Amino acid sequence: MESVKRRDFIRKASVAAVGAAGVVSACASEKTNTATAARSTETFNWKMVTTWPPHFPILGVGAEKFAEWVDVMSEGRLKIQVYGGGELVPPLEGFDAVSQGAAEICHGAAYYWAGKAPATQFFAGMPFGMNAQQQNAWIYSGGGLELWEELYQPFTLVPMPAGNTGVQMGGWYNREINSIADFKGLKMRIPGLGGKVISKAGGSAVLSAGGEIYTNLERGVIDATEWIGPYHDKLMGFHRAAKYYYYPGWHEPGTTLELLINKSAFQSLPESLQQIVRTAAARSNLWMLSEFEAQNHAALKELVNEHGVQLRRFPDDVIAQLKTYTEEVIAEVAASDPMSKKVYESYSAFRANVTSWSKLSEQQYYDTISS
Amino acid sequence: MESVKRRDFIRKASVAAVGAAGVVSACASEKTNTATAARSTETFNWKMVTTWPPHFPILGVGAEKFAEWVDVMSEGRLKIQVYGGGELVPPLEGFDAVSQGAAEICHGAAYYWAGKAPATQFFAGMPFGMNAQQQNAWIYSGGGLELWEELYQPFTLVPMPAGNTGVQMGGWYNREINSIADFKGLKMRIPGLGGKVISKAGGSAVLSAGGEIYTNLERGVIDATEWIGPYHDKLMGFHRAAKYYYYPGWHEPGTTLELLINKSAFQSLPESLQQIVRTAAARSNLWMLSEFEAQNHAALKELVNEHGVQLRRFPDDVIAQLKTYTEEVIAEVAASDPMSKKVYESYSAFRANVTSWSKLSEQQYYDTISS
Repeated sequence: MESVKRRDFIRKASVAAVGAAGVVSACASEKTNTATAARSTETFNWKMVTTWPPHFPILGVGAEKFAEWVDVMSEGRLKIQVYGGGELVPPLEGFDAVSQGAAEICHGAAYYWAGKAPATQFFAGMPFGMNAQQQNAWIYSGGGLELWEELYQPFTLVPMPAGNTGVQMGGWYNREINSIADFKGLKMRIPGLGGKVISKAGGSAVLSAGGEIYTNLERGVIDATEWIGPYHDKLMGFHRAAKYYYYPGWHEPGTTLELLINKSAFQSLPESLQQIVRTAAARSNLWMLSEFEAQNHAALKELVNEHGVQLRRFPDDVIAQLKTYTEEVIAEVAASDPMSKKVYESYSAFRANVTSWSKLSEQQYYDTISS
Repeated sequence: MESVKRRDFIRKASVAAVGAAGVVSACASEKTNTATAARSTETFNWKMVTTWPPHFPILGVGAEKFAEWVDVMSEGRLKIQVYGGGELVPPLEGFDAVSQGAAEICHGAAYYWAGKAPATQFFAGMPFGMNAQQQNAWIYSGGGLELWEELYQPFTLVPMPAGNTGVQMGGWYNREINSIADFKGLKMRIPGLGGKVISKAGGSAVLSAGGEIYTNLERGVIDATEWIGPYHDKLMGFHRAAKYYYYPGWHEPGTTLELLINKSAFQSLPESLQQIVRTAAARSNLWMLSEFEAQNHAALKELVNEHGVQLRRFPDDVIAQLKTYTEEVIAEVAASDPMSKKVYESYSAFRANVTSWSKLSEQQYYDTISS
């Protein structure tokens, strides 16, 4: 009976197929006037500034891909010229530049703007906070994006997630970290809340853009730096300036990258282009994370096997102490202004729930299924 | 010095802002004829069939969102009418329907088409295989998508990832699983390779579409079923038909959902609409996973606290035995035809690398950072 039914279905489907093909070709040949009339024909030329060096792999290249997807989808109605950090404005001035309209859009990470509003940091990622999958769930499906938009409203900016690094490495150190005391006096390039934790541990946190880190590390201006993970860190050449490569990246367990857009520029777009920008941003979010995940192993292997990098895990008691400091730091940030408190409450409530679920799902995956 | 530089920059940026705003408004007011001429005006009306019941939460709703995003982005040039399983063709006939042109596009999961080509199963997900993040990395950045396209080429179909369930639950059982012997004689609804593993363990694997499972479980036609995870399983009402809810979902650690598209229908689209479809599919991929991750905890809590569901973890020795059977099953599939072998080799090489990286990153996250 099964096979008879199946043949029947296939026969019917074949008949239907002819019909469907007919419909498609009929549609393709007629150029409906009403439909054409409803379509927007305005063109927009945007400048995108980025916090990355020009054509920076994955991050800068991802921003260029975003611009290309938008260009193709919009049939050239929205052209976005991508500038590396420093080409149009300094790398860490993108927030002001876009807020004030010197550029329409910026690709970077929200924790770079902590000086503008402390709560920005929660949207990039928190030390001992959520990873990429959890962070995305909070942003897209847990109220995070709405809070992010509310936070950027006074700056006339519209934020969107547009990339994720995945769990980062703990960073490059020119000395071993055997106890929490080893952070005393340590000068480390580490932005955002992670930097505040290092300060609590007695180190000093330095903020500098990607292009300046290697030189600072090599010249001893800093003793340590975190960046991203093996693929990117290898490209940055940090293994030539520091010997010890630590994991895990407790300070950035899944940093969300950001598009921020001048609000009036965004609102001047027709709905179709707004949706194209949102959808391309989501694709960037997934694409960048996939690239990092696909590239990291080979890079790490090369760093260890060919460049003699010493891979080290932070000792458990160091991790525990960093976590205690992190709780203090986050409590301070959450208490610093009403918006930080509001964002923190949403973040931490979501995190408690998703972590509870992760214990039966993703954690089981790593410990049981994939072991 | 810092603040002086900053003021300087802000002044310059403000000047630039006026210029930029001027450019935008000039562009917005001119309707370039050449640009308009290059734009496609053809309209396309597609039918999307799905393997889900009509308006099914997250999966069916996600398919509808995909259609809506495409509609808005294309300004109505590509209209996609979404049909629930059974509305246009039976739920598991989407592959044939789209291959033969009765519908242009289908949303489902690739393992439903194992009878067409065994290698389809690798693209949905493998028992003890990769999770969502790893699977995406393989598909987008590790050569997976190219192989998937090659596999579907003889069927004149174009595949795209368009959703992920995350790590699933192990399923609903009307009896406890205390040893591998408890699978003997067990009739379980479980598709794809997981079903073959259950058969090796002495059970019998039944394949049925979503709409039929509850009734089969309730009437004792089957003794157990897997579906997805707490949120969805609660909506399906399985807790009213089976008492024990098992984890982890060893059989589906991150099932990729699929759009398959009639190749000539896809090729008849202008490049802009092809890119719109690809980009909306990527957004769907991320959106569905985020929804599952955001909803699962509350649903699980309700199932346990309000419906008296008995949460159980498969014993370690059961997991170990299922893994052994899985290796046999996968070896058989990989040996069954050249394309399966080719896909398996790509999948397993990628998996070995990404797992090695995961041990320092995501696994550390769950065991150390988020603990």
